Amino acid sequence: MQQRILTGITTTGIPHLGNYVGAIRPAIAASSASGVESFFFLADYHGLIKCDDPVRLSRSRVEIAAAWLASGLDPERTYFYRQSDVPETLELYWLLTCVTAKGLMNRAHAYKAATDSNEAEGEDIDAGVTMGLFCYPILMAADILLFNAHKVPVGRDQLQHLEMTRDIAQRFNQLFGNGKELLTLPEAVVGEQAVLPGLDGRKMSKSYGNTIPLFAGGRDGLSAGVMKIVTDSKLPGEPKDPDANPILTLYSAFAGADESAAFRAELASGLGWGEAKSRLVQCIERELAPMRERYESLMAAPAKVEEILLAGADKARALARALLEELRDAVGLRGFSSIGAAAHPAAPKAVAAASSKPPTMRQYRESDGSFHFKLVSSGGTVLLHGGPFESGAEAGRTIRALRETHGQSDELPMHVRINAELAGDEVEAGLQAWVDSSGD
Amino acid sequence: MQQRILTGITTTGIPHLGNYVGAIRPAIAASSASGVESFFFLADYHGLIKCDDPVRLSRSRVEIAAAWLASGLDPERTYFYRQSDVPETLELYWLLTCVTAKGLMNRAHAYKAATDSNEAEGEDIDAGVTMGLFCYPILMAADILLFNAHKVPVGRDQLQHLEMTRDIAQRFNQLFGNGKELLTLPEAVVGEQAVLPGLDGRKMSKSYGNTIPLFAGGRDGLSAGVMKIVTDSKLPGEPKDPDANPILTLYSAFAGADESAAFRAELASGLGWGEAKSRLVQCIERELAPMRERYESLMAAPAKVEEILLAGADKARALARALLEELRDAVGLRGFSSIGAAAHPAAPKAVAAASSKPPTMRQYRESDGSFHFKLVSSGGTVLLHGGPFESGAEAGRTIRALRETHGQSDELPMHVRINAELAGDEVEAGLQAWVDSSGD
Repeated sequence: MQQRILTGITTTGIPHLGNYVGAIRPAIAASSASGVESFFFLADYHGLIKCDDPVRLSRSRVEIAAAWLASGLDPERTYFYRQSDVPETLELYWLLTCVTAKGLMNRAHAYKAATDSNEAEGEDIDAGVTMGLFCYPILMAADILLFNAHKVPVGRDQLQHLEMTRDIAQRFNQLFGNGKELLTLPEAVVGEQAVLPGLDGRKMSKSYGNTIPLFAGGRDGLSAGVMKIVTDSKLPGEPKDPDANPILTLYSAFAGADESAAFRAELASGLGWGEAKSRLVQCIERELAPMRERYESLMAAPAKVEEILLAGADKARALARALLEELRDAVGLRGFSSIGAAAHPAAPKAVAAASSKPPTMRQYRESDGSFHFKLVSSGGTVLLHGGPFESGAEAGRTIRALRETHGQSDELPMHVRINAELAGDEVEAGLQAWVDSSGD
Repeated sequence: MQQRILTGITTTGIPHLGNYVGAIRPAIAASSASGVESFFFLADYHGLIKCDDPVRLSRSRVEIAAAWLASGLDPERTYFYRQSDVPETLELYWLLTCVTAKGLMNRAHAYKAATDSNEAEGEDIDAGVTMGLFCYPILMAADILLFNAHKVPVGRDQLQHLEMTRDIAQRFNQLFGNGKELLTLPEAVVGEQAVLPGLDGRKMSKSYGNTIPLFAGGRDGLSAGVMKIVTDSKLPGEPKDPDANPILTLYSAFAGADESAAFRAELASGLGWGEAKSRLVQCIERELAPMRERYESLMAAPAKVEEILLAGADKARALARALLEELRDAVGLRGFSSIGAAAHPAAPKAVAAASSKPPTMRQYRESDGSFHFKLVSSGGTVLLHGGPFESGAEAGRTIRALRETHGQSDELPMHVRINAELAGDEVEAGLQAWVDSSGD
């Protein structure tokens, strides 16, 4: 089977050179490897968490899609789609929500950062925190698991989310898989992401306001950005420290090793900053100029970009629907006709007989806080139910009583009822198998 | 406009007499009133929160749908559908998630009950709590708001959820409505719900294990249930206390006032308990027998039931899709072609000029905990952005500085950048309008 690699693309902000060198270019290069199926999606549902500015969100989506396509993303050999065109994402999101422990989300870094900072300021720990921020790791899990992705390239800050995705998938498989791995546990791939410096030498980032635009503003925008790089006041002819500002690093990101070495030597031996900057622009332009042309023609035809994304969503949804069908069946959202057969009295018995595994006792709580347990056959049939109990301890005592008195008395402990839809001897056989199998 | 009334139906458990008298019968009666559009849905996504038993969930859905239809629900004049057949529900659910404050969910009763009980036992407060339980009020809000329902009949325990639904809708309208009420604020209708006693005199409820089945088990099941009602040992001929057990109350739920009074008199004057029980069965049967016949024929043709629900979902989705289209547009998940026009440089200016309202300053936090603000025109265009700041106080100081120094200096305070996509004079005009409009 092909290795599936999935990459989510943030949909707010205008792509800059740092995005291109750090994310876009390497991801597109990786997608052309053989044996690989690449999924790229515009994470616009995620975008809503941070952005309540509709104009910005809607513009960004077009610009970012056009930027990736112009940079060489091949929508024929990859899956390229908008998250919001794949409604199966949110269905899986809900299924996962139902099996995710709240405690897991309490520990998410982004949420913790928000509460820590609130705490430090003496505010309510959840001040300003939306449910979108709190639930976001589950949506990310849905994005990944929906396509049973094997690998997800992430930054170190996202490693925890991948761990959570694995936890959630494991829990789902455990509850509903009947031994089958319904959801594939993805692996994080932490690459050495190239970090491009911005105008001020810090990492190029929208938050620092130190970016050089990728395509926006045309060649002039690029030039103007490069001209803003702060240098010292050494004159042409004076030797320069090539590492004193980001010019050489930016140059190297677009030039071969030999060219970069030559540029370094020229700076050291006196190349003027003005000339250095204009060489940098030329060097970047060599790579970007043809892309910018594609970008501009895509931006002039946004409907065409949308068509590409919709075709990508169609391809992606064909996979997503197949998985969802299996998952819906697993959790019990089944077609009614299939239930017609199961409702036949003989069916549960057949299920029980077909299996040699003993039933298991599951404890759980209802939303009103009460404690319960049920004895469930390996085929998923509830044989017996206990509850409501006021405490877990009381439920535990009742389970012990059930085990210890079994066979000596026909009476069930208080608050324990057998499944009236099953034949009594089936419940009896299940109970006996459970007693025989439980060690403690 | 018609009044829209929406009723969610729990999909776990077999319907019993208490469900019929307390919920099914009155809801169906109300749906035949004129000027009313009724929505009934099987809340099977909610069902997943409490039920990890696929067989039980899938059987319950069929039985419950068949029970409502057999009881007289008219799928032609109402909207009758499965929640899980309306994917728009989950899309709205996510949009609402992004605007819901986590603090609101912290206060939900069902969640509080779980944490209180954990606390009392010295456990981690979130032990055993799933995100499904925690997020459930938002899903309920989506169910209601998706159809702009006006009225939602609820029990007292659900009143808080309706309040939350209104809060969430209000917040959404505020953020994205531009003065328009995109989502209708629903009203709770707390009716005098008839509470039927169970075998032991407490409210008939699955949790108490004191139920009499509605249709399951046929007339024999009903008889067997009634026979289990505990009475005293008075002999036929001895006067009975008609209120000492639930027989009379059950009888009255299916008989007219005169009949009930006569039955009471007979009990007081010595009717035997055995005879009383068999009269009770006859009385209930008068109403249920023809329904049970319909129920059984529906259960024999589950595909037919499903067809009815799918047709209902189709009708419902036509409404849901129209609303979602409007909401997607409002939040910025827009078709790319519409953006083509907005991306034209003149467009934002036109928007700003068309409006006479001054821009507003909005403070917010990013998921990394940093503080930000932006100045937003009344048309939704971001004029200027400030951040990241380490604290809300720092952001506040910067906003004050911006206001106080405006006009005296061309320099912006640290970490403040104007929107480079707009013309400088447009930002200037917006800033001036904001300074003029802000009082403090």
